[in-house]
Amino acid sequence: MAKNYKVAFEPDETRVVEVPPGTAILAAANEAGVYVNSLCGGDGVCGRCRVIVREGKASGGSTEYFTREEIQQGYILACQGRIESDVVIEVPPETRLAGAPKYIEGEVPRLADLSKLARQAFRLSPLVRKTYVELPPPSLDNNVSDLQRLEQALSGPIDSEGFQMGLKVTRRMPGILRKAAWKVTAVTGHRGPLTEIVDIEAGDTSKRSFCIAADIGTTTVVCNLVDLRDGQTLGRAAKYNSQVRYGADVIRRIIYATQRRENENELREAIVGDLNELIHELVTKYRLGSSDVSLISAAGNTTMLHLLLGLPAEHIRKEPYTGAAYHLPPFRAAEVGLKISPRGLLYCLPCVAGFVGADVVAGIFVTGLAGSDEVRMLIDIGTNGEIVIGNKEFIVCASASAGPAFEGSECRSGMRATRGAIDHFRLQDADHVLNYSTIGSAKPVGLCGTGYVDLIAEMLRVGLIDRTGCLREEASPSRVRPGQQGEMEYLVLPAVRTKTDNDITISQGDINNLLRAKGAIYAAATVLLNALNMTFDDIAEIMVAGGFGNFLNVENALFIGLLPDIPPKRMRFVGNTSLAGAKIAALCEGCYDEIFRIADRTTYFELSTAPTFMDQFVSACFFPHTNVELFPSVMAEMKLLQEK
Amino acid sequence: MAKNYKVAFEPDETRVVEVPPGTAILAAANEAGVYVNSLCGGDGVCGRCRVIVREGKASGGSTEYFTREEIQQGYILACQGRIESDVVIEVPPETRLAGAPKYIEGEVPRLADLSKLARQAFRLSPLVRKTYVELPPPSLDNNVSDLQRLEQALSGPIDSEGFQMGLKVTRRMPGILRKAAWKVTAVTGHRGPLTEIVDIEAGDTSKRSFCIAADIGTTTVVCNLVDLRDGQTLGRAAKYNSQVRYGADVIRRIIYATQRRENENELREAIVGDLNELIHELVTKYRLGSSDVSLISAAGNTTMLHLLLGLPAEHIRKEPYTGAAYHLPPFRAAEVGLKISPRGLLYCLPCVAGFVGADVVAGIFVTGLAGSDEVRMLIDIGTNGEIVIGNKEFIVCASASAGPAFEGSECRSGMRATRGAIDHFRLQDADHVLNYSTIGSAKPVGLCGTGYVDLIAEMLRVGLIDRTGCLREEASPSRVRPGQQGEMEYLVLPAVRTKTDNDITISQGDINNLLRAKGAIYAAATVLLNALNMTFDDIAEIMVAGGFGNFLNVENALFIGLLPDIPPKRMRFVGNTSLAGAKIAALCEGCYDEIFRIADRTTYFELSTAPTFMDQFVSACFFPHTNVELFPSVMAEMKLLQEK
Repeated sequence: MAKNYKVAFEPDETRVVEVPPGTAILAAANEAGVYVNSLCGGDGVCGRCRVIVREGKASGGSTEYFTREEIQQGYILACQGRIESDVVIEVPPETRLAGAPKYIEGEVPRLADLSKLARQAFRLSPLVRKTYVELPPPSLDNNVSDLQRLEQALSGPIDSEGFQMGLKVTRRMPGILRKAAWKVTAVTGHRGPLTEIVDIEAGDTSKRSFCIAADIGTTTVVCNLVDLRDGQTLGRAAKYNSQVRYGADVIRRIIYATQRRENENELREAIVGDLNELIHELVTKYRLGSSDVSLISAAGNTTMLHLLLGLPAEHIRKEPYTGAAYHLPPFRAAEVGLKISPRGLLYCLPCVAGFVGADVVAGIFVTGLAGSDEVRMLIDIGTNGEIVIGNKEFIVCASASAGPAFEGSECRSGMRATRGAIDHFRLQDADHVLNYSTIGSAKPVGLCGTGYVDLIAEMLRVGLIDRTGCLREEASPSRVRPGQQGEMEYLVLPAVRTKTDNDITISQGDINNLLRAKGAIYAAATVLLNALNMTFDDIAEIMVAGGFGNFLNVENALFIGLLPDIPPKRMRFVGNTSLAGAKIAALCEGCYDEIFRIADRTTYFELSTAPTFMDQFVSACFFPHTNVELFPSVMAEMKLLQEK
Repeated sequence: MAKNYKVAFEPDETRVVEVPPGTAILAAANEAGVYVNSLCGGDGVCGRCRVIVREGKASGGSTEYFTREEIQQGYILACQGRIESDVVIEVPPETRLAGAPKYIEGEVPRLADLSKLARQAFRLSPLVRKTYVELPPPSLDNNVSDLQRLEQALSGPIDSEGFQMGLKVTRRMPGILRKAAWKVTAVTGHRGPLTEIVDIEAGDTSKRSFCIAADIGTTTVVCNLVDLRDGQTLGRAAKYNSQVRYGADVIRRIIYATQRRENENELREAIVGDLNELIHELVTKYRLGSSDVSLISAAGNTTMLHLLLGLPAEHIRKEPYTGAAYHLPPFRAAEVGLKISPRGLLYCLPCVAGFVGADVVAGIFVTGLAGSDEVRMLIDIGTNGEIVIGNKEFIVCASASAGPAFEGSECRSGMRATRGAIDHFRLQDADHVLNYSTIGSAKPVGLCGTGYVDLIAEMLRVGLIDRTGCLREEASPSRVRPGQQGEMEYLVLPAVRTKTDNDITISQGDINNLLRAKGAIYAAATVLLNALNMTFDDIAEIMVAGGFGNFLNVENALFIGLLPDIPPKRMRFVGNTSLAGAKIAALCEGCYDEIFRIADRTTYFELSTAPTFMDQFVSACFFPHTNVELFPSVMAEMKLLQEK
């Protein structure tokens, strides 16, 4: 057997792994638990897993992603570079996951922020609750079984068609009841018409009853620690979804999951690990025991929930895009590997279709759309743009594959909304930047989604691109130039002003990506409206969900045609409604049940079979649109600009 | 470490075990899996675990149970004899478990034998069923999830408030559905208002759908193999409850179970092993795979069900006699260790109290008592005598600790109703036996319960005992004699006519045991009637349940006052209603639910707190009763006898 080589990673990690000769650097990094950016999941096509060989030898791989200088410095793609000796690998800033996701107070849903309709349905009645009871000790006059004694005591505080208890708890029950002198706390879980007695604890532990509400995003995982006694959110924690290393979007992850049997498990362990990390962080911070948490309520897109539960996601990707299950009963959290109370339950919110997940259903509930008298629209902009239109009488939804451009992927200088990302941007003219802001006010590393929206709008305003998105070299001969691979690009910020010592640029390909992404979302909304014989004028309110929305410059989003041209007062940013829904469901059985009814009521509209979608998409692949009359305010502004 | 000794058992077993010096022979036998009779569970007080040391040395223990000759032959109590060298131990016939329990066709409940009332409620709708469905393959027009597709197909044939599926099956489902080209058989289980999709099998397996109905008696375990498609009983198998080696009655077993932590498990493994043996026997005989059986429906007394499920039985024994749980949901059979389909379910019928078990509740349903217009009484004679009185409006029950005398235990020559047991007996006069019959027409080994009833009645008739049960030496100076321990006894059959080469006798102590047993049952019935302001005249019908009843000479039972003196047409033997109930419940969801409602409706009457019980008991400890006027037909016969 060949000797293994030692691989050390710098600068953030001191972990060293030993691997056989020929191992890919990315595989070694995964083994060491070192994060290396990789959007394509190791196919060698995204060019994002740039690392530097500081010592030793690694060979192989494409050179097209690097300059000559970079290659001389030791740059190599981690997915392609093979380890040929003991090596020291540096993971440069642009390849690292810098800190935690941007996460601000405003993003955290609070009950007070809920729509009035959702608030009305709310009554504090958690899915898993702790009820302290003092049982009358058995006597000859009252010698029902221990279980019946407990059920009798619980039937007052808990309204249920019947109780159920698993064998393990039933076995332990008589001992606990007697040891605790008949004063116990029952942990009960909502199971449709039935109530499961999940666990029994000696004495009064009802004061220590917490839950984790989780939004499992393709990119970001966010958890809230919630006190089930009063519904207050104690703490918040977020991190990037570690599955990112296997692919930036759900499609790549499904492909990875189905390549080998172990891969599915690897993805499952990645997200389970993320959740456990966040749970541990929150539980530790608030000095709880993990047994104080007996409930996890999770929302997320269909693929994320499949991967979490270990359900095969394979068929979501292929026509006709069907998942294994969209409505799932609660499962033992431990069965999934989640580290809360060993008997605690995991409730997943329901999905509607392969590409309309529980995150969207949560949004339909939380925004009050499902109970609205007027017709409302909900838009969730992410890798997929999900569009919902409805009111209390009907709900239809569709999903447009927008690609991850607005999530900062698939653009050369794109990055997630994290430290160093340019999130807002203004040009003075075609040659000069007026100002920009970065997350954390750090030295710029790249551009995140909201930064791109601003950049495109500004480039359009100053004439750097035309309405088809085509770069106009004549607008700034100094900054519009051929890039490394010959493709035209615009120099946004020169290397001297960046943290990576690389130019921040936007290429013609990047612009085309962004154009297609916004076109797909706009076309989806239009096709859905057409199918309902409606226009944007019939929509009382457009609600934009997702972290993206909160930081979006609406004027710019409208200027490039990402959002329709409606008066600002009919537009609302609703934040992370997925997390809000997970939290409300956890706190209120009735809301949880209502969310399932909403999923049942929601009709999925398959865009790929809609004959008009392609036409609408092509029409929308203009800034703001082929039919500029749909954007009267943009028309007016453009006219002003031309007059200047 | 001291050297271990080899212990070999003869004649039936060739198994040899090695044990440390000083090990009790009984412990070695248990380890070797050799059955040795022991009623007291090893306390050295029952004198039943007689074995013979053929070679080697074993020492210790009481001599009072043996004759001088026996001791010279090597007889020793297995629970007390300590192994001092390599030994060969013979287990003599009287100590062995001879063959299978007596089990005849007539004892097997058939639907046609059910009471009309129970039959009316019956509709073939098994608790676990297999439903073959052909699903429409997913298409863009119909791309619901795999689970919803399956549920939609099942919602036609299965009427349910909702479906549930465990995580393991959900994970496997998409693969099975596609591999089977959307033609699958769903195995579903009844869970209150919900239906659990227990398993999914490729293709049409609905023709192979069987269940095991089990009656778990303290002494005997009986299983029926039932075809769930038509409710036909295919096969029957029975064996003695292997727990017998730890004690003849439930009290002794509970004591054993609570002595050490491992003991509870030992008892659980014994009964689980018995059931698995019977299941294996039946499945093999009818050439089924164990996966063809996905349902076990079990009835039994409260203690037996606790021990089967591994629930602590400890508190059943002590005032106020409460069990852990009487109403239990279905459990995964595999969780209990039962070897049917790995995903199959075990349904236990409900109990009412620590000493009124699911066997009795099954009887209340099967006999139609619970739906009867007239008031009926159900008597189940076993170690405990359970009495139920009721009609469609009320049901009360009580349990009298009768002791195991009628089960052939606790009497010197007593034995179970198995090969060689005298089951019927007639005397010509005090000195001469007229005739007797044995089970299997074998050479007599001892007396079983029905034999004792006949023997006592006959002894009473010929004047060998008086109405207090006292042996009258003067009636037969040759056969009434002082026994080994000085106690008076009656020689039933001399050693030359027995298989064991030992006299078959009945001692004064035996008679007192039987007197107390019948007194307890009669007193219980009387106290319960008094509490209801009723007499036996108000009872439209007395139904006697249990295998015992089927073989009972009613005239003799009545003559000794075990049964009340009512006209024979108002008396009915209903057989093994426990097994019948388990079977009906398995075949009919509605009946299963009704049995639970019956358990709820049944009021337990605690005899130990009834102030009149002791008086009634003392009065009933006469043959037939202190107040002989309660037994007019016995009075008449006695008068005739005296006149002869």
